Formats: sequence, structure tokens, C-alpha cells
Amino acid sequence: MTERDIDDLPRNTANYTALTPLWFLERAATVYPNRKSLIHGSVEYTWQQTYNRCRQLASALNKRSVTFGSTGSLGVTGKFAPCDQEVTVSSRGNNLRQKCKVAVIAPNAPALYEGHFGIPMAGAVLNAVNVRLNAQTIAFLLGHCSAAVVMVDQEYFTLAEEALKVWENNSKGKFKAPLLIVIADKNCDPIPVQYALEKGAIEYEKFLETGDPGFSWKPPEDEWQTIDLGYTSGTTASPKGVVLHHRGAYLMAISNAVIWSMQEAAVYLWTLPLFHCNGWCFIWTLAAICGTNICLRQVTAKAVYSAIVHLGVTHFSAAPVHSRRFSSSICSCLHTYGRSETYGPSTLCTWKPEWDLLPPDVQARLHARQGVRYVGLEHLDVVSTKDMKPVPADGKTVGEIVFRVKHPDGYIEIKDRSKDIIIPGGENISSVEVENILYLHPAILEVSVVARPDEQWDESPYAFVTLKPDVKKTDQQKLAEDIINFSRSKLPKYWVPKSVVFGPLPKTATGKIQKHLLRTKAKEMRPVKKSRL
Amino acid sequence: MTERDIDDLPRNTANYTALTPLWFLERAATVYPNRKSLIHGSVEYTWQQTYNRCRQLASALNKRSVTFGSTGSLGVTGKFAPCDQEVTVSSRGNNLRQKCKVAVIAPNAPALYEGHFGIPMAGAVLNAVNVRLNAQTIAFLLGHCSAAVVMVDQEYFTLAEEALKVWENNSKGKFKAPLLIVIADKNCDPIPVQYALEKGAIEYEKFLETGDPGFSWKPPEDEWQTIDLGYTSGTTASPKGVVLHHRGAYLMAISNAVIWSMQEAAVYLWTLPLFHCNGWCFIWTLAAICGTNICLRQVTAKAVYSAIVHLGVTHFSAAPVHSRRFSSSICSCLHTYGRSETYGPSTLCTWKPEWDLLPPDVQARLHARQGVRYVGLEHLDVVSTKDMKPVPADGKTVGEIVFRVKHPDGYIEIKDRSKDIIIPGGENISSVEVENILYLHPAILEVSVVARPDEQWDESPYAFVTLKPDVKKTDQQKLAEDIINFSRSKLPKYWVPKSVVFGPLPKTATGKIQKHLLRTKAKEMRPVKKSRL
Repeated sequence: MTERDIDDLPRNTANYTALTPLWFLERAATVYPNRKSLIHGSVEYTWQQTYNRCRQLASALNKRSVTFGSTGSLGVTGKFAPCDQEVTVSSRGNNLRQKCKVAVIAPNAPALYEGHFGIPMAGAVLNAVNVRLNAQTIAFLLGHCSAAVVMVDQEYFTLAEEALKVWENNSKGKFKAPLLIVIADKNCDPIPVQYALEKGAIEYEKFLETGDPGFSWKPPEDEWQTIDLGYTSGTTASPKGVVLHHRGAYLMAISNAVIWSMQEAAVYLWTLPLFHCNGWCFIWTLAAICGTNICLRQVTAKAVYSAIVHLGVTHFSAAPVHSRRFSSSICSCLHTYGRSETYGPSTLCTWKPEWDLLPPDVQARLHARQGVRYVGLEHLDVVSTKDMKPVPADGKTVGEIVFRVKHPDGYIEIKDRSKDIIIPGGENISSVEVENILYLHPAILEVSVVARPDEQWDESPYAFVTLKPDVKKTDQQKLAEDIINFSRSKLPKYWVPKSVVFGPLPKTATGKIQKHLLRTKAKEMRPVKKSRL
Repeated sequence: MTERDIDDLPRNTANYTALTPLWFLERAATVYPNRKSLIHGSVEYTWQQTYNRCRQLASALNKRSVTFGSTGSLGVTGKFAPCDQEVTVSSRGNNLRQKCKVAVIAPNAPALYEGHFGIPMAGAVLNAVNVRLNAQTIAFLLGHCSAAVVMVDQEYFTLAEEALKVWENNSKGKFKAPLLIVIADKNCDPIPVQYALEKGAIEYEKFLETGDPGFSWKPPEDEWQTIDLGYTSGTTASPKGVVLHHRGAYLMAISNAVIWSMQEAAVYLWTLPLFHCNGWCFIWTLAAICGTNICLRQVTAKAVYSAIVHLGVTHFSAAPVHSRRFSSSICSCLHTYGRSETYGPSTLCTWKPEWDLLPPDVQARLHARQGVRYVGLEHLDVVSTKDMKPVPADGKTVGEIVFRVKHPDGYIEIKDRSKDIIIPGGENISSVEVENILYLHPAILEVSVVARPDEQWDESPYAFVTLKPDVKKTDQQKLAEDIINFSRSKLPKYWVPKSVVFGPLPKTATGKIQKHLLRTKAKEMRPVKKSRL
């Protein structure tokens, strides 16, 4: 102890292993080989089967040279262009290889779940694509990540086909056709599968058969290696690439289990899309707790209630839509918030037992706050935009761009996304606060407030409103005036929307209102004329 | 994406933070400032208070130059010898500093809990000492780690004083008196505290007062840094040093929460000593789940039952003693196994629901297995001692030294520690298997079987037995014969103990039988004479 300090001990295989969620799957297959891992309609798998299928997928990909980025020496067949970026050697002598990217375009179904393990087990990187994107955007993503393989559910095959055409057209001769795998669903019409096979795709189950279920996969040597390349949902702008490493996926998966009190053998219903931030990493959490995944091809209220009643669902996630009809006798509700860049949820509005005694409206206000940081997160604060120093925790001071108000109890609350703030003559208006007031109006089901050009104020609030089904929609002019008068009684004068328009609101695949589309729409409108008042 | 690979993204403060369990405390104080963190008799603290006290401790230590290992420039007073090892600079230009070690000799009480946060917050390393060790062994530990500070509970002050004398005598003039802090307990006799103060010690609460409760502590720059230096319990030999890093403590703490299904706000009763492998890292787990610690100065059955009834205890740990009177209506029981070198528990005999229907003796056999690996552990296997390759999972093949038999379902079972194996003429005898048979004898409460020299067989089994309280102990010779005959009916001939001796068994502070002491005792006996049979 005197010659060498204890901090100086060398790392070795006995005291250091790269963190990766892939081990969770191997463990689940060892501990609960016969427990149900995934139920998808009439298709059911055990953890042993899921592990075997993931190893088959990894093995089959490796046989097609889809791995850390070899030059295709392992037997490429047919039209397939393997990942063939250069293998480089760093100055420290380590191989710095480019990993192949495997894009998956699929709803919540076994293949996408398996891809989260099998693709990184092959040494490749998963890119789970939002199925609600259009062909142009998908083409951008596939080209951006140079996808070596595209796995696509039969329902989305023509969409993928179109995206590949766009990609090829945009690539200026550099396009290399990826390996196309079509995922058939026996509960669906077989015609699209037949069409895909004719177009040269290989069927997913056939592809798995080319792999070895006992495949000896290699965990990452460095936990910093990439497991997934995702893209932001595009709520505020066009998608941005987000790189997740094995370490982060492991930590987030295990934090989920702690924060959500998910005990071993929990049954998780996939109402959240698996492609959305890798299902907030719950995909890997389920393997860590040896639980059961319930996948629904179509997330309908009927299917959700049926799964809750018949399959013993213990947990599910949902995006907030401003409908306040929770049946507290069925479930307790946790409010969580996060971003793709933070592996999904990163704050939780932890409910305190003493709040149970408060009046419902106070409870709702407390619960609407984004709350405190996740157990796996080390830093969360609200800072002043001027000096980046923390703002006082007074529940009033508005601070840094994303996390907006810090309450005296340390809970934060989002007042607005920076892009959604409306700036009439330099005075900021929180569009979220205007919306919160409008939601109190009895006729409003959903509302989104954005900036519209204004002759006098440069920008002024403009409300897009969806009315409740039972509201008479005959006299919309009168309804709009009523809503404006209603907000006048509750908001500062310059916060009151200058105009209201009715109709359905555009939403992302995860149910979030796409404010940037409304903002663009409003921007193109003629400016509001100078007020006579 | 084509110029630079996605694996190549640089680490920065936005995407990388060193893992450390210290953040759990800051989070608990933010989320639940008023929730009880620790209850110790009439002393109760909230998470805000615990956080403040830990910061005070860190600040007070830093003021005494107890940190990463400065040379005492920060104002050393009185008799105190700060940590003054050389500051060296590595070839890579990083400071490689020797951290100060702070030894704590205390039962389960607030100061030891606080030490697990406050000492690493000061940049120093905790050494939690087993209070049941004798002065010679404690002297060895203090000297081995060059303790700069010794915090000692009033009950153990004279023990510490004696240990310091031994350390000084053994140090050949190199001894530097550590800073002595005496931890007073207001529920105990004040005389030992008075004595300690006269001997130059400072009282713990007075020491805290010299620190700043708002102290701005620094998390470790590298998660590989040492948080704790422990010593093995000495079940098989003299204590061995075990170095824990922040990363491992973090991962183990969070794995505990998942594996033990410890929901937020769980109430954990400290029957396990805090000094034992840092309470298997549950110390940090409790902060992660914002739970409540219940400390007992004396762990008595009465105190345990009282805490369960009155304080809402949800979890506690216990070392196995072969008493089988579990009241299944009070709690469910998890069998876990681990070593100091693995941060505490590393296997768990995960109970499968289908086992509920099996007969009790089969359940007991299944439950007695050490089981499958922890969720935070990546590797566990049983290997052949010949080629270090995994043994078949047939429930019979005995393999590598520590983990002994792997069942077909992947559960492992310890047959014996390598040091406890008895080798009569080259044929191994598992002392544990002999003990398991002897435990079936109606008169036996506890038994330990070790090797005794044998003229004919080199070694033969020898049984140390504690009888049940209600057994007539008058004719011990007859009882011994009866036990030997009993085992003859159930064991291979050469496995049958040649002799039986009665009396209490020596145990470690954690309730484990100290077989090495019995082994030494048996070794010194005269060899068993050649049998006439």
C-alpha cells in the first residue's frame, strides 16, 4: 500500500467488464428459459427462444458480412452490398472500424424487438425507423447512416421501396442497394410479402434460418461503442441523429427498472412504439427483469384494455394527450419527460405521499411538472440564459432553454420549448401557458398555440384548436370569439390569441403535436393588422 | 457519417459522467428532503439532514488535509498527522495522488452510514473495520492502509487505543498517529467518551461542526477511483484487502434495487453489519431509492421484531444459520451469495413460481442452491480445475474452486470452499455435504466438518457439533456414536466422520462459522489411528 497507491490497480477481466444490455438477454434465457419473453397476437416466444432467434439474426448478419465493417470477404451473395467502409488503424494501434448500420422499419412486433439485441450482437448498429415518416424522410435517414441492411415489415414494404428510390436518385451514383429483408406477419395479408419476394427481398424467418441459434456472439470490447443510431422525432425541426452507446443503454435500462418499480416478471404493454428512442430503453429493461413484452400491431383502446385484463399487464407508457379521464382504480400514473438525446426519460414527477391529501386541482398542477432527475442522471438544472448559472428555486423564475422553471422543492417544469416561444416586441410569451389556459375552456379538446406574424407586435399568439366531439360546430366565428374572450379574462392582454382556427392537429408517431408544422403554416399567413385598440 | 464513424464521437461532459453512488445522496436530498433517511433509536435524520451532515464531514476532513493526499498545507492542528504520501506525476501528465484512508470502527449507527458518503466526498477512502476483530488484527489493517483518521464508536475506543499501540510497536518508528474521532452515542454511558476526549480524541458531532453543510464536494473525475478499501472477513484465512471503485459501487447499489425488488421508499432494517462489504452496497442502494435505514445498536430478535412491526420494515438481510424456522407469513426469503471481492452478493437463487407446488423438502433443496448470477454481473460459471472450461450442467459434475456444481437449469450450488475440502487418500470429500447430512440428525443445532490428520487416510472428517438446547447432554459418548451411526446410513463409508466433539462454534461478525479456526484446531490433534476394519 505504500509503494503503489490503491487507485493505481490495473483493469483486467476480473474487475472490469464493458457494460452492455446484451448480457441481460443471455441472463434471462439462463434464469427463465421457459418464461414468455414476448406475446404478439398468436405468436409467443420464451426467453430461450428469443435469445436463440437473436443469435440467429446476429449469425445470419455476420454471414452476410454485416458486422463491424469488413470489406465483404465473408461470402456476399446476390444483390447485397455489404458495409465496406475502410478499415483504419488508429495511432494507438486499436482497430477503429466502421460499423454496419441495419435499419428496421416495423411496428411493435418480434423482429424489431429482436433487432435490438441481434443487430448489436453482430457488431452492427441498429437504426429503428419511425414508420410514420414519409418516403423522403426515410430516404434521408437511410442515406445519412448508409444502411447496409433494411429490414421492413410487410405493411411498409412499398414505403421502403419508394424511400430506396429517392435515396438512389439523391445519391449521385454512389448508391449501393442494401440487403432487403421483409418481415412477414402471418396475421396479415400475404400479398405484400409475395410482392417483396419478387422484388428480391428475403423473408425474415428464412433469413433467421441461415443463422446459428448457438452463435457465439462477442460483447463490445468498449462500452463506449455504439449500439444504436436513432433520429429525433422532429417535434421542433427535421430529424437529428442521436448516437447511443452500450454503456448508456445499460444504465438507462436498469434505471427504468428502479424508477418505475418494475419488479422481476413485470408484464409490459407496448403502447409506446419500439422505434421511439428504442422504446425509452424499456426493450432492454424487460430483459434485465426477465419480464414479458406484449406487442400490439395496432394500438387501439380495445386491444389495450384486452391486454390489461387478459395478459396481466403491470406497466405501460403513454404520451400525454390532454384528455384527463384517468381511471385511478386501474393504474397509478407517473409523469416522466425526456429526449432522444437522453436515451428517453430523464425526469420523473415523483409523487409524494403527502400530496394525496391535496385538492384535485392542486394535485393536477403538481403532477403536470416535469419533476426531478432520473436516478441514472447526474445533472439537471435550470439556468439563466445570461450567465448559465442556476436560477433561484422560487417556482417563478424562468431559466434556460429546455427546462424552464424550477420550483422551491427542486421540481422543474417546462414552460416552453425555446422554438415555441412567442416574442411580441421582445416580451416572451410561453405558448404552453396560453394552451394551459385554453384547455380550461369547455369546448376545447386539443389546442396548440404558435406565433403568427403581426404588423404591430412582430409576433402574436395564434391558436389551432380541435373541438370536443359533442360541441356544435355550426357557428365557428362565434366560438372563436368566445374562446378569445375567455382567455382575455385569464391572461395578460398581449398573451391573448389574436385568432383561432379549428381543425385536427398534426401529430408525430408518438402522439406529440407537431408544432413546427403549425408554426410554418402560421408563418406563411398574412400578418395580423394593427389593432385598433 | 462517411467522414468519421459514429463510434468515434468524443466523450464530453454532455455525454459522459463518472458513475458514483454519491449522486444518489444529493438526489435523495433534492427529491425527498423531509423523508426519514435513518432511524437509530431516538435519533432520526431526514435525507436533507443526512446530506448536510455528509457534506459537513467531507468539509471537516478537507480542513484537516484529509483528501486526495495533500502534504498537509491546509492547516494541520495539534497531534494530527495528515496523509502525506508523495504526490507523483504519471508519464501521461495526470496527477496520481495517494488518497487518505479513513478507518471507521463502529456498529450500525449514523456515523458509519455517513462515512460511506462523506469520506469519499472528501476525496478520501473509507475503511470500515469489523468491530469483532481483535486489537492485533485491527492494528494490521490500520497499518496496512496507513489510516490518516480513525473514527471509533465510544464502545470500541479502548479496543482502538490498544490497536494503535500495537500498530506503533510494529511500525519500527514509522508510526504517525492518526486523527482520532470518538463517536458518542447519547443512549450509552458517557464515561468512555470522557476518557477518549482526555486521550486527545475529538467528538464526532464537534468534528462535524467544523465542517460546512453546504460544502461544494467534487465527484470523482474517473469512476475507476477508489471509494472504499475493505478487508475480507477472514473465513478462510487472514484478511485480504479489497479495493472498490465508484463505478462498481454504483452498479452494485442499483443492481440490488432491481434484484431485491426494492421500490422507492423501501424501509431497510440493518441486521447485516454496515462494515460487512459496505453492507453489500445496500448503504448506497437506500440513497438511490430514497428509502429509510433502520439501524440497531444491538441486533436482537426483540429489536428486529419491534422494527418490523413498528417501523414498517420491508427488507432486511441475514446470514444463514441452520435454523429453519422461517415464518413465511412475515416475509419472503431470497437466497443470495457473494464475496467481498464482488461487492457483496453476486448470485441469487431466483425463485420460480412453478416451484411453489413442489414438496417442502424439494423446495428446500432448490432454495439451498446459490443460484444464478446477479443482474449486474456478466460472468458466472463453473469450470473444470483441469482446463478451466465450463463443466456440464448436469447437477452432478463438480467443478472449479469457488462455485461448485452447476445444475441443468443453470443454477449453481456450492459444494465446498476449496480450503474446506477433505482429501482422504486423494478422494475429495465435500465437508458441506457431510454437514448437510448431519443437519438431518434431530439432536444437532449447528455442525462444522473439517479435516483431521489420519494415519491411514492422511485426512479424515471430524465433526464439531452444537447440540439443540433441549437435548440431554449427559452421555456425550453415546450421542457421538449415535451421530456417527446416523451418518453411516446416509454417506459413503470414507465420508463418515471419525469423531465428533461438542461445544459452541466460533463465528465471524457476520454469523459465518470460522472453519479455519476449527481446521487449525483439528490439524493440531493427534492423528486418528489406523482403523481395525
